[in-house]
Amino acid sequence: MAKKVAVLAVNPVNGAGLFQYLETFFENEIPYKTFAVAEAAQIKTNSGISLQADDVVANLKGKEDEYDALVFACGDAMPKFGENAGSPFNQDMLAVIKTFDDKGKLLIGHCAAALLFDNLGIGKGKRVALHPFIKSVVKGCIGTDEKTVIDGNIYTVQTENAVSLLLPNLLKALK
Amino acid sequence: MAKKVAVLAVNPVNGAGLFQYLETFFENEIPYKTFAVAEAAQIKTNSGISLQADDVVANLKGKEDEYDALVFACGDAMPKFGENAGSPFNQDMLAVIKTFDDKGKLLIGHCAAALLFDNLGIGKGKRVALHPFIKSVVKGCIGTDEKTVIDGNIYTVQTENAVSLLLPNLLKALK
Repeated sequence: MAKKVAVLAVNPVNGAGLFQYLETFFENEIPYKTFAVAEAAQIKTNSGISLQADDVVANLKGKEDEYDALVFACGDAMPKFGENAGSPFNQDMLAVIKTFDDKGKLLIGHCAAALLFDNLGIGKGKRVALHPFIKSVVKGCIGTDEKTVIDGNIYTVQTENAVSLLLPNLLKALK
Repeated sequence: MAKKVAVLAVNPVNGAGLFQYLETFFENEIPYKTFAVAEAAQIKTNSGISLQADDVVANLKGKEDEYDALVFACGDAMPKFGENAGSPFNQDMLAVIKTFDDKGKLLIGHCAAALLFDNLGIGKGKRVALHPFIKSVVKGCIGTDEKTVIDGNIYTVQTENAVSLLLPNLLKALK
């Protein structure tokens, strides 16, 4: 049976990244549910389009066991993450990511995903793909210049422009 | 000054295709407005996410002169297009596409876009990229196996998975 995926979408989210995952899951019959990293399920793309996630991240907390994998869909919320790190939805997001890792589930994400994982002490000694601007910022993870890296349960991609390179191997892991 | 783009989104639309155009336009300061090919501006992606377009295609009709280029974002609405071709929003879409071509504006699209153009008598003798299933169906256009083709004012892409290959040349034309 296909594994079930929880998809985190920050607000605003890069729609090109988010929907490359979602349309691929849809076409391959991988079950998924989207969670807005926000107070409400209606969020925006970087490009200004309103979209409706299935739920908010607060309601994923405590239900991590219902899923096998977590996707972090990055977006323009992240450059300002430092200013808003204390908000309940961001704290919920961090807790959820940590729980998925503690339980050995798959963690998937592009752009700043690896930095979030690193800040949580996830992926120590593991190689990651991440936005070139933050390559030198990660401490426990090993930043690379690669477009996409799979190391253990951590699936990372440099930017939304490389998500398509990860998808074939991600599908193998999820089917 | 950057050219202004009208973006048609069918219902349901492939979100991966749609948002590769939109996020790229956003990041490159290309002005754009989205139009749902539907009765209402709220439509869905193939993957089931509700999103809000800026307007509906009926309100683009007669205002084509405000734009320099038209993107057709394909989706799962298209395999059923034949059943719904007579609906007002599909008739409006066809009229708008024809007007953009009559005025020599850029026509851009992936997957079944070239088939729509072909049915309207647009792009006669011009080479197009299109979904492999419909390569032999086009009559006036010349179907190819290429990922992306630019021929005159017609910019076509095989599927949403190749949109990124068109974008650099599309940006040159729009800036």
